[in-house]
Amino acid sequence: MIDVPVVMLNVKAYRESMGASGMELARACERVAESTGVSVAICPQQTELALICREVEIPVLAQHAEAFEAGAHTGYVVLEAVKEAGAAGTLVNHSEHRMTVADIEAVVSRAKELGLCTVVCTSSVATSRACAVFEPDFIAVEPPELIGTGIPVSKAEPEVVRRSVEAVKEISPGTRVLCGAGISTGEDVRAALELGAEGVLLASGVVKAERPEEVLLSLAKGAV
Amino acid sequence: MIDVPVVMLNVKAYRESMGASGMELARACERVAESTGVSVAICPQQTELALICREVEIPVLAQHAEAFEAGAHTGYVVLEAVKEAGAAGTLVNHSEHRMTVADIEAVVSRAKELGLCTVVCTSSVATSRACAVFEPDFIAVEPPELIGTGIPVSKAEPEVVRRSVEAVKEISPGTRVLCGAGISTGEDVRAALELGAEGVLLASGVVKAERPEEVLLSLAKGAV
Amino acid sequence: MIDVPVVMLNVKAYRESMGASGMELARACERVAESTGVSVAICPQQTELALICREVEIPVLAQHAEAFEAGAHTGYVVLEAVKEAGAAGTLVNHSEHRMTVADIEAVVSRAKELGLCTVVCTSSVATSRACAVFEPDFIAVEPPELIGTGIPVSKAEPEVVRRSVEAVKEISPGTRVLCGAGISTGEDVRAALELGAEGVLLASGVVKAERPEEVLLSLAKGAV
Amino acid sequence: MIDVPVVMLNVKAYRESMGASGMELARACERVAESTGVSVAICPQQTELALICREVEIPVLAQHAEAFEAGAHTGYVVLEAVKEAGAAGTLVNHSEHRMTVADIEAVVSRAKELGLCTVVCTSSVATSRACAVFEPDFIAVEPPELIGTGIPVSKAEPEVVRRSVEAVKEISPGTRVLCGAGISTGEDVRAALELGAEGVLLASGVVKAERPEEVLLSLAKGAV
Repeated sequence: MIDVPVVMLNVKAYRESMGASGMELARACERVAESTGVSVAICPQQTELALICREVEIPVLAQHAEAFEAGAHTGYVVLEAVKEAGAAGTLVNHSEHRMTVADIEAVVSRAKELGLCTVVCTSSVATSRACAVFEPDFIAVEPPELIGTGIPVSKAEPEVVRRSVEAVKEISPGTRVLCGAGISTGEDVRAALELGAEGVLLASGVVKAERPEEVLLSLAKGAV
Repeated sequence: MIDVPVVMLNVKAYRESMGASGMELARACERVAESTGVSVAICPQQTELALICREVEIPVLAQHAEAFEAGAHTGYVVLEAVKEAGAAGTLVNHSEHRMTVADIEAVVSRAKELGLCTVVCTSSVATSRACAVFEPDFIAVEPPELIGTGIPVSKAEPEVVRRSVEAVKEISPGTRVLCGAGISTGEDVRAALELGAEGVLLASGVVKAERPEEVLLSLAKGAV
Repeated sequence: MIDVPVVMLNVKAYRESMGASGMELARACERVAESTGVSVAICPQQTELALICREVEIPVLAQHAEAFEAGAHTGYVVLEAVKEAGAAGTLVNHSEHRMTVADIEAVVSRAKELGLCTVVCTSSVATSRACAVFEPDFIAVEPPELIGTGIPVSKAEPEVVRRSVEAVKEISPGTRVLCGAGISTGEDVRAALELGAEGVLLASGVVKAERPEEVLLSLAKGAV
Repeated sequence: MIDVPVVMLNVKAYRESMGASGMELARACERVAESTGVSVAICPQQTELALICREVEIPVLAQHAEAFEAGAHTGYVVLEAVKEAGAAGTLVNHSEHRMTVADIEAVVSRAKELGLCTVVCTSSVATSRACAVFEPDFIAVEPPELIGTGIPVSKAEPEVVRRSVEAVKEISPGTRVLCGAGISTGEDVRAALELGAEGVLLASGVVKAERPEEVLLSLAKGAV
């Protein structure tokens, strides 16, 4: 559903990624995808999901969705609404929005029924391996100690990436591994891909950059 | 900001209120507001907030917003994003999304700074009185035993409404009381207003109706 | 049930307050109560509640109890168990264990039925006033910015204490106010009492002291 | 640390399992262990952990412990306190107290450092397999649809037990599988053991029985 290698941007709930800036980030992703031919996906702010899905042609994912079905759940985002918005899938278990094991199982399994793609975020080789059991489309490994540091996991802890890829593939050969945390240059992206990752999950390095589109472009070039 | 008496519709995360149906509910609210002159507001699914704000002229509110500021909060909706979406405000502490006292204080206070309106949901006379201390724009009283029953609080427990209005006004004269739970006819709306409420908060009675617009219209007529 | 002025010690989940050290802290509280005639109460670690209740004669409180009734709630502490342990009551809504408004109402109301005392923790004048609505036995005001700083609220923000006392008494004359956050000397205790508080809620200042009993004694002397 | 096959009793937060009744249940477990030679363990109410550890000679486990270390965590039970109480270990991720993947990893890993035994509760073959990655001492499989029904998983869904045992052993040969949910007779216990389980996890079937000790005895006889 989402081509690889993929450059995936989680815009979080930053002030720099909402409203007009949120739309501009989505369009920048689209332009970079077009100009480089690299697969670029975006996870907009939850309130902007339906709007941004309508405006861009690249894959759009929710940042989070609940394990329960559509119903009387005021203020929560359910998978059916993600689907209705026109999104391609959702992040699951992001480090800022952890879920229980039972809920991860439920979200991944229900997303498959709905034809939605899942990107399960994990923090270590062991949690990557555990989550591979549910056979999500992607597992994004983000060692928590590197998040937001600008130190790429592909350099600081290449073994975490290599061993995560091995562990995940052993349990679920169809699941692809993304490299999160600290990726900020095209070289970091290339290093991640050489370690067996099939993409990267980005956030503040792009969102908070002075020229986000230039950063995205240089990152995407690392994946060509 | 929101005229009273107001008919406010919380569409929750129902399958019947997302996508094209969600947009149609918003437009129905708008048409009923226009044809009756009554103030009608809608709380769409979180993922559709920005899109629906763009499409209708009536007040639109988020179903929930967090107490923390914009930042690295993957999957959460912050007040700044509610504002950016063009919404008029947010529900706070809905019975399906309860908050701590400290967080209610923070959301109401930060919403005021941002020029956003707050509708704090409560379950009893005592909790209404407690939340009045934070001086929100609205307090919506929904006795939990009546939610989804079709039994209007204005009939089943008129004293809860009357005493909530008194308790709230004593602490915060500027806060308006909405009557939630079980309102399903124009007569229920009229009864609520006679007890001192300045509007109603609706959900399944409209969303799950065969002809939502007709139900909305009959409800709005109770507020004329 | 608990005499005032009271010196109340919350031992939290510190390594220095468990096992033999936890029991020794409880006995130190008891000795200080005996030697000074001042009311001293302790909130031991949850796992040690029944054991410590059996060993000392001073009032013992749980650090937290849930709003729901006894039942199938693995790993949670219910009020009935607090009562059965022989405790005098429980802390409610501590800043490290916040509760929803509806749950605070339920815990305070059910505690009254069970003859248990409640100490609701709050963070500001407004939240103190809001919680006074439920008429707990005590409200402990702990401005979060002062917790663990060693700066006594009675000195740093005397107005918070004075205004909290006024606000609480206006809503619920029978509720007593405790001064939390930063109390570390007998002089701080005296200052708190002069501002209208009827006791203090202590934690790390005692638990992490080299000689906890000496600190307790000097604090208690401030309440004589 | 805990001999197998084991009959493990989680007393939850039932009214029937606190205070004198809680102590009597612990003693009944001890007597049944002595008279049958079968390994019997108990998970008392959290408030009674230290007291019951002091009174009985059988393995005692906490019902829940947090992933974080000892510190300023009012009202929470940390592993260090479980150890100090003299307990043998703790239940982890019970269906009434679910945890995130990252927290399960942290609790199991920190428990090993402290010499504490872990019993991770799961709801399906897939979640059993996922949690086996962390190599806990035990995994207790409790299909949620059978909890409290009196229908033993070993009869209703023998394949869930058999396949859980296989899945767990494949990932972590040293981890033992317990059969939860619906076990109420010695015959159920025998069936579970024949399917490869090395014990059972019990709750309401014993706690709410008119004569808990007789039920325990008949269950233990199924494990001889």
